[in-house]
Amino acid sequence: MPKRVLCFGELLLRLGAPHRELLLQSPQLAVHVGGAEANVAVALAAFGHATAVAGTVADNALGRHAAGELRRHGVDTSRLVHAPGRMGLYFLETGALQRPSEVLYDRADSAFARARAASYDWPALLDGIDLLHLSGVTPALGAESAQAAIDAARCARERGVTVVFDGNYRGKLWQAWNGDAPALLGELFACANVAFADHRDIAIVLGRAFDGDDADRRAADAAFAAFSGLHAVASTRRTQHSVDRHELSAQLFTRDARFHAPAVTLEAIVDRIGGGDAFAAGVLHGRLSGWNDADSLAFGLAAGCLKHSVPGDFLALDAARVQALVGEARYDVRR
Amino acid sequence: MPKRVLCFGELLLRLGAPHRELLLQSPQLAVHVGGAEANVAVALAAFGHATAVAGTVADNALGRHAAGELRRHGVDTSRLVHAPGRMGLYFLETGALQRPSEVLYDRADSAFARARAASYDWPALLDGIDLLHLSGVTPALGAESAQAAIDAARCARERGVTVVFDGNYRGKLWQAWNGDAPALLGELFACANVAFADHRDIAIVLGRAFDGDDADRRAADAAFAAFSGLHAVASTRRTQHSVDRHELSAQLFTRDARFHAPAVTLEAIVDRIGGGDAFAAGVLHGRLSGWNDADSLAFGLAAGCLKHSVPGDFLALDAARVQALVGEARYDVRR
Amino acid sequence: MPKRVLCFGELLLRLGAPHRELLLQSPQLAVHVGGAEANVAVALAAFGHATAVAGTVADNALGRHAAGELRRHGVDTSRLVHAPGRMGLYFLETGALQRPSEVLYDRADSAFARARAASYDWPALLDGIDLLHLSGVTPALGAESAQAAIDAARCARERGVTVVFDGNYRGKLWQAWNGDAPALLGELFACANVAFADHRDIAIVLGRAFDGDDADRRAADAAFAAFSGLHAVASTRRTQHSVDRHELSAQLFTRDARFHAPAVTLEAIVDRIGGGDAFAAGVLHGRLSGWNDADSLAFGLAAGCLKHSVPGDFLALDAARVQALVGEARYDVRR
Amino acid sequence: MPKRVLCFGELLLRLGAPHRELLLQSPQLAVHVGGAEANVAVALAAFGHATAVAGTVADNALGRHAAGELRRHGVDTSRLVHAPGRMGLYFLETGALQRPSEVLYDRADSAFARARAASYDWPALLDGIDLLHLSGVTPALGAESAQAAIDAARCARERGVTVVFDGNYRGKLWQAWNGDAPALLGELFACANVAFADHRDIAIVLGRAFDGDDADRRAADAAFAAFSGLHAVASTRRTQHSVDRHELSAQLFTRDARFHAPAVTLEAIVDRIGGGDAFAAGVLHGRLSGWNDADSLAFGLAAGCLKHSVPGDFLALDAARVQALVGEARYDVRR
Amino acid sequence: MPKRVLCFGELLLRLGAPHRELLLQSPQLAVHVGGAEANVAVALAAFGHATAVAGTVADNALGRHAAGELRRHGVDTSRLVHAPGRMGLYFLETGALQRPSEVLYDRADSAFARARAASYDWPALLDGIDLLHLSGVTPALGAESAQAAIDAARCARERGVTVVFDGNYRGKLWQAWNGDAPALLGELFACANVAFADHRDIAIVLGRAFDGDDADRRAADAAFAAFSGLHAVASTRRTQHSVDRHELSAQLFTRDARFHAPAVTLEAIVDRIGGGDAFAAGVLHGRLSGWNDADSLAFGLAAGCLKHSVPGDFLALDAARVQALVGEARYDVRR
Amino acid sequence: MPKRVLCFGELLLRLGAPHRELLLQSPQLAVHVGGAEANVAVALAAFGHATAVAGTVADNALGRHAAGELRRHGVDTSRLVHAPGRMGLYFLETGALQRPSEVLYDRADSAFARARAASYDWPALLDGIDLLHLSGVTPALGAESAQAAIDAARCARERGVTVVFDGNYRGKLWQAWNGDAPALLGELFACANVAFADHRDIAIVLGRAFDGDDADRRAADAAFAAFSGLHAVASTRRTQHSVDRHELSAQLFTRDARFHAPAVTLEAIVDRIGGGDAFAAGVLHGRLSGWNDADSLAFGLAAGCLKHSVPGDFLALDAARVQALVGEARYDVRR
Repeated sequence: MPKRVLCFGELLLRLGAPHRELLLQSPQLAVHVGGAEANVAVALAAFGHATAVAGTVADNALGRHAAGELRRHGVDTSRLVHAPGRMGLYFLETGALQRPSEVLYDRADSAFARARAASYDWPALLDGIDLLHLSGVTPALGAESAQAAIDAARCARERGVTVVFDGNYRGKLWQAWNGDAPALLGELFACANVAFADHRDIAIVLGRAFDGDDADRRAADAAFAAFSGLHAVASTRRTQHSVDRHELSAQLFTRDARFHAPAVTLEAIVDRIGGGDAFAAGVLHGRLSGWNDADSLAFGLAAGCLKHSVPGDFLALDAARVQALVGEARYDVRR
Repeated sequence: MPKRVLCFGELLLRLGAPHRELLLQSPQLAVHVGGAEANVAVALAAFGHATAVAGTVADNALGRHAAGELRRHGVDTSRLVHAPGRMGLYFLETGALQRPSEVLYDRADSAFARARAASYDWPALLDGIDLLHLSGVTPALGAESAQAAIDAARCARERGVTVVFDGNYRGKLWQAWNGDAPALLGELFACANVAFADHRDIAIVLGRAFDGDDADRRAADAAFAAFSGLHAVASTRRTQHSVDRHELSAQLFTRDARFHAPAVTLEAIVDRIGGGDAFAAGVLHGRLSGWNDADSLAFGLAAGCLKHSVPGDFLALDAARVQALVGEARYDVRR
Repeated sequence: MPKRVLCFGELLLRLGAPHRELLLQSPQLAVHVGGAEANVAVALAAFGHATAVAGTVADNALGRHAAGELRRHGVDTSRLVHAPGRMGLYFLETGALQRPSEVLYDRADSAFARARAASYDWPALLDGIDLLHLSGVTPALGAESAQAAIDAARCARERGVTVVFDGNYRGKLWQAWNGDAPALLGELFACANVAFADHRDIAIVLGRAFDGDDADRRAADAAFAAFSGLHAVASTRRTQHSVDRHELSAQLFTRDARFHAPAVTLEAIVDRIGGGDAFAAGVLHGRLSGWNDADSLAFGLAAGCLKHSVPGDFLALDAARVQALVGEARYDVRR
Repeated sequence: MPKRVLCFGELLLRLGAPHRELLLQSPQLAVHVGGAEANVAVALAAFGHATAVAGTVADNALGRHAAGELRRHGVDTSRLVHAPGRMGLYFLETGALQRPSEVLYDRADSAFARARAASYDWPALLDGIDLLHLSGVTPALGAESAQAAIDAARCARERGVTVVFDGNYRGKLWQAWNGDAPALLGELFACANVAFADHRDIAIVLGRAFDGDDADRRAADAAFAAFSGLHAVASTRRTQHSVDRHELSAQLFTRDARFHAPAVTLEAIVDRIGGGDAFAAGVLHGRLSGWNDADSLAFGLAAGCLKHSVPGDFLALDAARVQALVGEARYDVRR
Repeated sequence: MPKRVLCFGELLLRLGAPHRELLLQSPQLAVHVGGAEANVAVALAAFGHATAVAGTVADNALGRHAAGELRRHGVDTSRLVHAPGRMGLYFLETGALQRPSEVLYDRADSAFARARAASYDWPALLDGIDLLHLSGVTPALGAESAQAAIDAARCARERGVTVVFDGNYRGKLWQAWNGDAPALLGELFACANVAFADHRDIAIVLGRAFDGDDADRRAADAAFAAFSGLHAVASTRRTQHSVDRHELSAQLFTRDARFHAPAVTLEAIVDRIGGGDAFAAGVLHGRLSGWNDADSLAFGLAAGCLKHSVPGDFLALDAARVQALVGEARYDVRR
Repeated sequence: MPKRVLCFGELLLRLGAPHRELLLQSPQLAVHVGGAEANVAVALAAFGHATAVAGTVADNALGRHAAGELRRHGVDTSRLVHAPGRMGLYFLETGALQRPSEVLYDRADSAFARARAASYDWPALLDGIDLLHLSGVTPALGAESAQAAIDAARCARERGVTVVFDGNYRGKLWQAWNGDAPALLGELFACANVAFADHRDIAIVLGRAFDGDDADRRAADAAFAAFSGLHAVASTRRTQHSVDRHELSAQLFTRDARFHAPAVTLEAIVDRIGGGDAFAAGVLHGRLSGWNDADSLAFGLAAGCLKHSVPGDFLALDAARVQALVGEARYDVRR
C-alpha cells in the first residue's frame, strides 16, 4: 500500500533570463514553478508516490498556474488554499563559466507569507498522511509562517506521521524580520525524524560550530544527542570548479552508521536550481520504498545529479530513469 | 530653442503573455517597460523634445532595465533615483474578439510607492524645465506619492513651468488606501495649465456629474470656472465594437473654442496599452512646437491611433511618421 | 452538491505551424492537447464542475503529457488507461483570409483506437458519475471504439446517468473502415438525453434529409419522435465571410420549445478549433447549474465565441469570464 | 509536355521584425528569401511547372541559403552563378492599422548588381526554355543589369521564347544612378509578349500620362500600338482601407478583349509582400496551361489574394489550393 | 568527372524538445529531417558530389517538407516517390550530463514501410549511378523493405555500381516483425564493397562473437573471408564519459592493411545524432575523390566529430571546413 | 571627480545564428550591437565611468538602434553623427567543439567608412575628455578613417588627453584598400600612452619579428624604445583546446616592470566575441580608478574572462561583479 506524502511550503514562480543571458538582456522571461517543498513533491510524485501539497497561494492567474503545474506532474493540490495576496516571485539570471547565477527574490508580502498560522487545520490536512516534508525556508518567512511550520510538525509528530525537515538556511530572509532562527529551527529539528542538513545548518540550531573534515559527522552526532526523535541526517557536498562544472557527493548518517555516495562530476550543468530538493526526494523515495540507507543515498545522489541536467526547478523523471544512473551508468542514446 | 520636459511618475515592467495566449498558457512572458508618464516621455523624446523623467525606481536589475529602456529611447534618466524596494510589475493578458485584456497589477510596496515626498528636491529637479507632466496614477498610489505630485505641481506653478495633468483615474488604487481622490486630484487640477480629462475625471474632482452628449464640453467649462490657471482640456472618445476593433475620436476645449478630431476606425488592434498617453504626447508635441490647437489635436489623435499598431507601452516613432497620418493617410509599403 | 461528469474519447496532440505559417514553413511546431471530449472536460472543469476523462492513451511521454495537461486544467485522469500504442496526432496549418486551415490527421493505430471494447469496466468507470459525454468521433474510429461508446452509453442509461452525445460526424474516418455510421450512431442517439446535432447529423442517423430554413427544427422533431429519451437538441450555425471572420449563432430545441441565441460577429479569429466543444460545454454548464434552457444556450454561445479568441483546443476560462459576455459585453481592459 | 520557365533577377534576403514590432524593437530578425523574379519562380514551381532561375548571387553562406530555399521549393538553381560580392538585403518593418510597412533596402553593390552583362551566356541559359520572366527591378539596378536584362529579352525574342515583363517601377533605384528608365524599359517592352503593367508603368515608357477611370485600358491600347509583339497586359488594382484591409481586383487586356476579375476583400492581411508576383505567376500558370484569358486572370487574382495570407515573399501553394478559391470559396477547416 | 551517388532509405522527421528540456516540457517541438541514408546524402552533396536519394515518402505536407530539405542541401529528389501513408517520425529528448538522450520512434506503417519491393525499378533508379549507399535500418523495417534493399544491392552489384552498406543494427525494429536479421543482412553484406560495421554488426551476420581488444580487426577479417566482394570495413569507437563528453576514434580495415585515426575529445556536444552517418560520408568522400585509405579515414573521423557540433541530423558543411580539422586544427574565429 | 572617456570607432550590428546553428540553418538572426570601441565604451560605462562615443553611424533605423543600445548601457551618444550610408553588419555563426566560429563581414561602404576625416571637429569632440580610446580597426577601414584616427590621436595628445590604442590588427581589411598599415599604425602608436598589443601587433609597426617565449616582453621594450610617450603595453594570451574551452592569461609591461595574471580556464564558453575589448576596459578601469598595475591587470583579466560567459559583444556588468572574480572566486548561486 503506497505511502502518502504531504509537503508544506511556499510555491514560487521563477522568471528567468533565457540562454545564459543577463537578466532582461533580451525582453523575455522563461517561467518555471518552484519552491523547495514543491520540488520535493513533484519528484516524489514522479517516482510514483501519492503526494500532496499544503500551503497558501495567490488567488489569481499566477497562483492558479503554479497549482496547475503541480497537478500536471501528478501532485494533489486539493489541500492548497488560494487566498488574496501576491504571488511569490524570483527572477533568475543563470550564470556561466566564472559568472555566478543571481537570484533576485520578490516574494515579500506573498499570499503564503500573509497566511495566518491559525488558518491551517493540521489534523485535517494530515489526515491519511504518512510523511510530512518541511523546509527551513518556511519559518524564515515570518512569525506566522514559522508558527505554521511548527504547528504542522508538532501535529504530525503527535499523530505518528514521519517528519522530514530540510535545513535550507536562508540568512537574508531571517534578517529581514529579525527572526530567532536558532529557536524556531530548533523546534522543527525537535520534531524531525529525518533531517537534510549539513554541519552549518546544525551549527545554527545548536549554537556551536563544527570544523574539520569530519564536521558533518560530528554535527550529526550532536544533533542525534540533542533531538531524540531524529533517525537520520543526510546532506550533499558540492565542489565547484566553475559555475558549470561541479562535483557532487552525498552522505547519510544514522545513530549507528555512516553512508557515503562518492562524488560525481557534473560538467556543462544545465540548471542546478532544485538539486538539493531532488536529492532529498531521492533519499525519501528509497526510505518510502523500504530500501536500506545505502541504496536510498545512492538513489538520492543520482536524483540530485540528474536535476542538473533538466531546465527548471523540478525533477520530473520516473524512478527507472534515476535508477539507471545508479551503478554502471550508460550514456548512449536510448532508442 | 527646444523646450524641455519633465515627466514624474512610476516606471513599471509589463510581463505579458505572448500571441494572444492566456496568462502563462505557455511558460514565457514578454517584457515591456511602461508607466503613463514614461510613455509620454518616450513619445515626446521620439518627437524630438528634450525629455527627462523624475521619480524613484528599484535599485536592482529590473529597475536598471527600466531606466535603460528609457535612455535607449532618448529620455534623460539622470534625475531618476534608484532606491531599495521592489519594482512595480503588471502582468498582461492581451485579449481578442470578445475576450477583454486583463491586467494583474503587482505594484504594491514598490520603490516608487515607498519613496517619501520629502525625498524629491523639486527646485533642483525642475531646473531648466519648461513643462512638467504628471498623471492621476501617482497620487493614487498613497499619501507620500500624492504629496510628491502636489509638491511637484506647486513648485512648477510657482516657477512658471507649464503643468500638464492627465486624469487617469484608477478607482482600485484609491480604494486600496482610502485616499481622498477629489481633494488630492483637485490640488493637481488647481496647478494644471493643460488637463487630459473627460467628464468623468472632472466629475470626481468637482463632485458633480455631467451627462448627455455634451458632457465633456460642460465638464470642461466647469473645470475652467473652478481652476483659473487651466487653459485647455483634451480627451479621446473610444467606441469599442470588439476587443480588436475600436473607433477613436478626440476633442480639445479651451476657454474660447472647441476642437474635434473625427473618429478613426482601428481594426485588428495590435496593442492598445498606452494609447491615451500617446494621444497626450501628440497634443503636447503640437503645443511645444507652437502649433494651433486644431493641428495639435489632429496630431494627438494620429499619435494615439498609431500606438494601437505597435506592441508594448511606448510609441517610439518620429514625428514625421505620425504627421504622415494627418490629412490624407497613405497605407502603401514605404520603400 | 456538485454534479460529476465523465467524458469518454480520444486524446490527441495537435502539432501546429506557428504564426499563420504554412506547415513546416519554419522548422517548429507548437503543441496543444485536444480531442472533442477532452475539450469539453477542460471547459467544464474550468467552469467549476468535477470532471473526469475515461479512455486509453499511449503509455509514453506523449500520452503522459496529454494526461498531464488535463490534470493541469483540473480534470481527473485517474480513470484514464495508459497502454502500448502510438499517440494520436494531428498536424494543423492555421489559415488566414481566403486560405482555409488544414488538418492532417495522423491518428491511425493509436492506443485509443487499438483498445478493446471489453477493456473498459463501465460500471466502475461510471461509479458516482452524473453525466456522461460522448461524441461521434469515437464510434468513427473502428468497431472496437464504436462498441466501447455504445457500451458506455447503455451502461450510463441503465444507471440513470445523463447521456450527452455530440454528433461530430467525420465522414473520412467512417469510410476508412467502412463502418455502418447510421446504425452505430443510432445506438448512441437512442441512449442520449441531450444531443449536440444539426440537421445533417440527424439526417445520417434517420436516413432522411431535412431541407430549408427550418431544417434543424424539423430534424430535431424527427429525432424526438425516433428517440424517446432525448430531451434536448442543440447546435450552432456558422456563416463564414472569410477564414478569419465568421458569424456564430445557436439554437436549442426541446420537445416543447425552441430557443435561439442571435449571431455574434467574430472578427480576427485567433483559433476556431474546439469552438463547438466549448459551445457544448457551455450549454452543459447551464444545465448542470440548473439554469433554464435560454440561459444555458446564451452561456453556451458565449463560451463557443470566446473559444475563438484563445490559442489551442481548450477553453480554460472560468465561468465568470464567460458570463461577462452574456447580455451587455464590455471590451475594455480589465484592471 | 511541360513548359519550361526561366526567371532572371536578383535574389534578396528579407530581414524582418517579428510580430508587427518596429524594426529591432526586440533583438531578432526573421529571414525570408525574396526578389520579384524569384517569387514568380517559386509560385510557378509550386503550380507544377519546370522553373529555373538565372542571375548572380553572393558566393557566401547568405547566397547559398537563398539558392537553397529556391531548390527547397522545387526551382532549378543550376543556372545561377555564385560570385564575389555582398548579398542584397532588405530590412522590413511590417505595419499595422494606419502604420505603413517600411522597407529599408541594403542592396547596393550586391554580387548581382556587380555582375557584368557580358557574364551571361543567354543562348545557353535559354536553351530549352519556353518562357522568360523579367521585371523592371533588374534594369533599375544599374547599367550592367539593364544591359543584361535587355540582352536576355532580345535573345529570348530571337529564339521564339515567350517574354514576360513585369513593370515593377522603382523610382528610387533609377534615381540612384540616373538611369534612363523610359529608354531602357522601352527596350524590354519592345521584346515582351506579356506585360504586367498598369497605366503608370506604361506612362513612364511612352512618356505620356493616362488619366481617368479607363486609364489602364487606354494605356494598354497605347502599349499595343507601340509594341507590336505585345499580346496581353495585366495588372491588379488595390484599394487600401488600412494597412491590414485592402480590396484587390485585376484586369487583363488583349488586343481584342478586356477581362476583369472583381474585387476581393482582404481583411487581417498577414503579409502583402509578393502579392503582385503571385498574381503574375497565377496568370502565367493559366497561360502555360493553355487556359483562356478569363480563367487565367481569375486564377491570377486568387493567387495574388492568397499570397496575403502567407508569411514571407513566396506563395508556395499547389495549384489546387489556389483553384479552390476560384468560383465559390469554402473557408471551413479542411480535414 | 564527378561520381554519382544514390542513397536508398527512409526519410524521417525528427520532432525534438528544445534546449535540453524534457520532451514536451514546454509546448514546442523543433523539426529536423533525418534518416541514416539521407544524412549520408546531404553530407556527400555538401562535399560536392552529385547525390540523389531513392525511396518512398508520404504524399503530404510532411513528406514534401522532407524532400524539400534534401533539395535545399543539393540532393536530387527526382527519384523519390511520394505515396499514400504516413510520415515516419521520431521524437527526441536530447540528454545532458548523466541523462541519456531518448528517442521515441513513431515510424510504423509509414509510406516507406508500406512500399512494395516491386514498386522500385532498380535498373532505372541506378541508371548513371556510381555508388549505392544502403543501411541496415531499411531491411529491419519489414519484409518488403528488406527485399527492396536486397534488390537494390543485387542490381547495383550486377551493374558494377559500388555498393556501400552501413550496418546500423536496430534490434527493436527486427523484433517487431520477427525478421531474420542474419540472413537478410548477410545478403546485403554479400553485395557490399564497403561496409561500415564493427564487430557486433559482423557477429550478427556471421553468427559468431568477436571479443577482446582486437575484436573489430578479427571481425573484419572474418567478413573478408565470408564476403568476397568486400574491400573495406570501417567503424568508429566511442568512449562516453558523460552524455556531453565523448572520445571518438575510427578505424578502417582492408584485406591488406589497417588504418587508425586517433581519438578526438568531444566536449560540450551539441548534437550527436547522425555522427556515424557523417563519418561514413566522410570516408566515402575520400574514396570518391580517389584518396588513399588513411586520408579518407582521417577525413571521415573529422566529419563525424564535426557533426557533434551542429544541431540536427545533417552535416551540411563543405569539404574545406572538414579538411581544416585534419592535421593541425585551428579553433580561432574565422573572419 | 570622475574621469571622462571618449571611444572613437565604428558601430556594427551583429546578425547571429542562434543556438550553435549554422548560419541561416533556421530562418532567424539574433541581433547584437558591437564594435571594438563601442564594446570598451559599454564596459567602462557599466564600471561607472562617464563614457561617450564619437563616430558616424547610419541615419536609419539600424543606426538609431545601435546608438540606442549604447545609451541603454549608459554611454553618451550625443557626439555621434548620423549620416547617410549603410550600417556596417557582420553575420556570425558561433562554433562549437572543433567547428570554429565564422564571421562574415558586410561592412564595406558603411556610413562610418564613408565619413570624411575632415567631418570630425576633434577639439570640440575631445572637450572635457580625459582619455581617448581608439583601435586598429578604424585605420584599417580606409584612408579617411585612418586619417580621422590619426587626427583624433594627435589632437588628444596635444591637449594632454591620455591616448589608448588597441592594436586589433585586421589583415583582410588593410588588404582590401592596400593601406600602409605599418606607417598608419605607427602614427597611432606614436601618440599612444597605453597600448593593447602583443608582439605580432608591434612587429607590424616596427617591421621586425619577435620570437620565443619572451617575445611579448621584447616587443614591448622595442615599442617603449620607439615611442617615447608610451607608458604601458598589455595583452592577453589565449590557448585554445577546442572552440569551447580556452585558457586565458594576461600580461602588462611598463618601462620598469612586468605584471602577469595567471591563466584562467574557460570551459563551455558562451560567447568570446569582445573578450579582448572587455580586457582592455578592465585594465583601463583600474588605471582610471588610480589602482596599481597589478590590480588593474587582474581586474582586466577577470573582465576579459567574464565576457566569455555573456551572449553578445558587450560586457555590461558592474565593477563589483567583476571584482568578485579577482582573488578567490565564488561560484555559488547568489541569492
